[in-house]
Amino acid sequence: MDKYVIGVDFGTDSVRALIVDTQTGEEIASAVAYYRRWAQGLYCDPSRNQFRQHPLDYIEGLTESITEALSQVPANVRAQIVGIGIDTTGSTPCAVDREGTPLALLPEFSDNPNAMFVLWKDHTAVNEAAEINDQAWNHAPTDYTKYVGGIYSSEWFWAKILHVYRQDPQVREAAYSWVEHCDWMPALLSGIKSVEQIKRSRCAAGHKAMWHEEWNGLPADEFFAAIDPLLKGITKNMYRHTYPSDELAGVLCEEWAQRLGLIPGIAIAVGAFDAHMGAVGGGVTDRVLVKIMGTSTCDIMVAPYEVMGGKLIRGICGQVYGSVIPGMVGLEAGQSAFGDVFAWFRQVLMWPLLEMTESGLVKQEIVDQIEHQILPRLTQAAEALSIEDTQVVALDWLNGRRTPDADQTLKGALAGLSLGTDAPRIFRALVEATAFGSKAVIDRFAEEGVEIDEVIALGGIPKKNPFVMQVTADVFDMPIKVTKSDQTCALGAAMFAAAAAKVYPDVKTAQTHMGTEFSETYLPRSEHAAKYRDRYQRYRQIGGLLEEVLRKL
Amino acid sequence: MDKYVIGVDFGTDSVRALIVDTQTGEEIASAVAYYRRWAQGLYCDPSRNQFRQHPLDYIEGLTESITEALSQVPANVRAQIVGIGIDTTGSTPCAVDREGTPLALLPEFSDNPNAMFVLWKDHTAVNEAAEINDQAWNHAPTDYTKYVGGIYSSEWFWAKILHVYRQDPQVREAAYSWVEHCDWMPALLSGIKSVEQIKRSRCAAGHKAMWHEEWNGLPADEFFAAIDPLLKGITKNMYRHTYPSDELAGVLCEEWAQRLGLIPGIAIAVGAFDAHMGAVGGGVTDRVLVKIMGTSTCDIMVAPYEVMGGKLIRGICGQVYGSVIPGMVGLEAGQSAFGDVFAWFRQVLMWPLLEMTESGLVKQEIVDQIEHQILPRLTQAAEALSIEDTQVVALDWLNGRRTPDADQTLKGALAGLSLGTDAPRIFRALVEATAFGSKAVIDRFAEEGVEIDEVIALGGIPKKNPFVMQVTADVFDMPIKVTKSDQTCALGAAMFAAAAAKVYPDVKTAQTHMGTEFSETYLPRSEHAAKYRDRYQRYRQIGGLLEEVLRKL
Repeated sequence: MDKYVIGVDFGTDSVRALIVDTQTGEEIASAVAYYRRWAQGLYCDPSRNQFRQHPLDYIEGLTESITEALSQVPANVRAQIVGIGIDTTGSTPCAVDREGTPLALLPEFSDNPNAMFVLWKDHTAVNEAAEINDQAWNHAPTDYTKYVGGIYSSEWFWAKILHVYRQDPQVREAAYSWVEHCDWMPALLSGIKSVEQIKRSRCAAGHKAMWHEEWNGLPADEFFAAIDPLLKGITKNMYRHTYPSDELAGVLCEEWAQRLGLIPGIAIAVGAFDAHMGAVGGGVTDRVLVKIMGTSTCDIMVAPYEVMGGKLIRGICGQVYGSVIPGMVGLEAGQSAFGDVFAWFRQVLMWPLLEMTESGLVKQEIVDQIEHQILPRLTQAAEALSIEDTQVVALDWLNGRRTPDADQTLKGALAGLSLGTDAPRIFRALVEATAFGSKAVIDRFAEEGVEIDEVIALGGIPKKNPFVMQVTADVFDMPIKVTKSDQTCALGAAMFAAAAAKVYPDVKTAQTHMGTEFSETYLPRSEHAAKYRDRYQRYRQIGGLLEEVLRKL
Repeated sequence: MDKYVIGVDFGTDSVRALIVDTQTGEEIASAVAYYRRWAQGLYCDPSRNQFRQHPLDYIEGLTESITEALSQVPANVRAQIVGIGIDTTGSTPCAVDREGTPLALLPEFSDNPNAMFVLWKDHTAVNEAAEINDQAWNHAPTDYTKYVGGIYSSEWFWAKILHVYRQDPQVREAAYSWVEHCDWMPALLSGIKSVEQIKRSRCAAGHKAMWHEEWNGLPADEFFAAIDPLLKGITKNMYRHTYPSDELAGVLCEEWAQRLGLIPGIAIAVGAFDAHMGAVGGGVTDRVLVKIMGTSTCDIMVAPYEVMGGKLIRGICGQVYGSVIPGMVGLEAGQSAFGDVFAWFRQVLMWPLLEMTESGLVKQEIVDQIEHQILPRLTQAAEALSIEDTQVVALDWLNGRRTPDADQTLKGALAGLSLGTDAPRIFRALVEATAFGSKAVIDRFAEEGVEIDEVIALGGIPKKNPFVMQVTADVFDMPIKVTKSDQTCALGAAMFAAAAAKVYPDVKTAQTHMGTEFSETYLPRSEHAAKYRDRYQRYRQIGGLLEEVLRKL
């Protein structure tokens, strides 16, 4: 009898459910649901980098995407589904009550952004991250940041908690504990009604919450209390144990089985971050860098424990045993904005039209058409330019810098503008900047002795923009293989579901049977690569100078 | 019997003719003519900063604007016109034959941009300017740049000549001499048919061609030949004498009298640059800075010879006896782009619409309406932001830097971009940057001991954008008075016409009788001024750092 699993991938704007045949890896159905409140811009303030998501967006999206995907398959397949694996963005934490319910689901907090999930790209906690770093570097007996690259980021768990606690005494009073989005979804499906029973993701805990075996779990409570007395006791209702995603978070509860039309009791795998499961779906293995390229990028590698041992990699987001492939050290790096950089420029260019739509000058459908065409057209025009043509050097830190050396206070820049600098030239500079930012990550791995033989790319960008991929391959001077599946994160989640459901003994075996193919390979053009070597030096130089100035802004 | 004069002001895009009553200064008629070839973008390549204008654009524009203005006045006024004064942009030189005819008027050169006027903002001669500086600073017995601020600019006469000579052997062979636009127009109206009879403008020669009494005219021929043998003999058919604009360049010739419907023999004043005559029209006098704010800015002051004596001002565009007010030292500074910075941003924002107009998605008239509304709307949105809001720091050198310390290789920049940076925030940063750039000029004057008690503004910007003016007043922390006439350059030209026609004994007396009033005064808001002091320091700091990097781009 065939067995099927569902991989669920919660992205920034939408959630997708993918039904996969465990024997062949065939993706037999999928469906996407967009977050409604998020799509309206609710609870967010982009000018302050505040990005929050309501748990109802997740609940509705989960229900819609799974039921829609199931509606596409015959009844017998539905009956043969044996497990669900879930990945989410992260660090995307939320305050919960004693039962593990996100506070925004309680009537008194239903409209309070501080009671919602603080999305990965929310940078309101810049100051708090700085204080955590100061404490870890200069006062604590142990540098708790050493396994997360030596710099704690405002995108992460504790900084966000502290920021919310300072902003919002009511949320602080009501919060019993905090969960990551990837902890909560499996717990919800499993019908868990107690914080203590939530199986915490090794991936989230190790990469974002400074959990490590060396100190037997989370940093000491004194560490947090010394940063701010508001954090005193914060670890009490958190967790000590964490789990890789081939383990069971629980089994599907009656209520959700009924809601989704599935059999109760099927395996629910421990959750993890989208990029980590995506890397598994994309075929991550030793000496292979998997780049998940979307609004931001996440760069994932794995290394045998024997190789990594006590080695510490400077300035990447983390190295955690079992965070990607159980039994290996997972390494995470990335850029805080990639596709978002291009989307930002589109939004700037759309300003006149959006501003004047109300006046009825241009019909909404025309505006939508133009918005839809801007990036393809800009790409075409930018591709027609030579490398020598544009003198603009951009810095891609429009959402801060994640790696190397996290600093979310950094900003983007465009230098070298002249009266002849048109939109395609700016766009080309932005494309080059994102590729340079990617190369800076690769360089850091290499400097630290982690060899990269191969790059695999997945996510929205590799499917949508061959020009960006070609520039990136040229800048890397290395081939980039693109996964065939455009649902690689969900596929990775499905692999973990298969492992958790014991269809396969481990996720590596699941990879072998369910693995994706590659649709294309971008080969570096040596002439371009040579030119980009100079340009890259310029990027580094301007970046270094601006970094100093931007810190003072 | 009343006497009238015509002031003609050749701007970057158009020429205007203004008929003025010499007794009252009343502006009784005016007309504008746009340059047709220029409007189509002919002979220009903005991506290379190449900007050329065809002499036919000037001839047609001159004829149209004067005849149109004359058509608005009664026949008796026409008969009482006693003189014409002309200002133009500059340095805008053109190669001429032995008769003083611009080469592009000859059939064999009619389409050759190198045979046309090289517009002030053309920056193709960046390398040549550097070589001239090197020669002047390091090899010549005299530093010929000392009266033009110590740095020769790619916007100026000799750099442009050398660049054209290197590019175009045919033009080089055919060129007998070179004229400034403001030298040629009066010669044309006067029917002069010989280079030797052209009365050269003191203003153009002193500020842009290193003419000075100290070395008895132009720099020595050896100076030029040492830079490039192509320049050997270049001074031979140039000039030694120059003239202030209250003198006669000639009198109106039969041919042009007939063409314009005027009486032959009326006074034609020696030409000068728009900003210099504009400053006179705006009321320039000791300790008053007149800012002509349009696509670029020109900042003009005058100082008594006794005060200036041998004093040298570092890094401004020049100090020339008699260049503004005969009998005083004229000082010139300015920014290479001001309104052009805003127009650049509008053009970037228009890209999607312009790109997609061909497809018929949006009608041309709607596109035009949107283009027309962008800057007013951006202004409104930018004005609604607080000074603290935007974290973007812009550098206004999109067309290089004219003062302080000319360097046309410099470029603009936007630093501090985040995903929340929208079009109005970028625009506000650009407005602040242009104001900061203006303040850098004022600061330099003050540092060099030239006191400024009052700022008078004229040109397109003060009339069009109160927000820009208010920010500038706040940044200066000084009141700015705006001239009532929006044709102040043409009015200044009319004053010189009146002086040349001997209606008045000198231009200062003409100023008294024909002077403009002020329409408004922008007072600095002290709270804003205090905040901008910090922001200005940031601009200087980022500017200083980027300057080093940009030099290497």
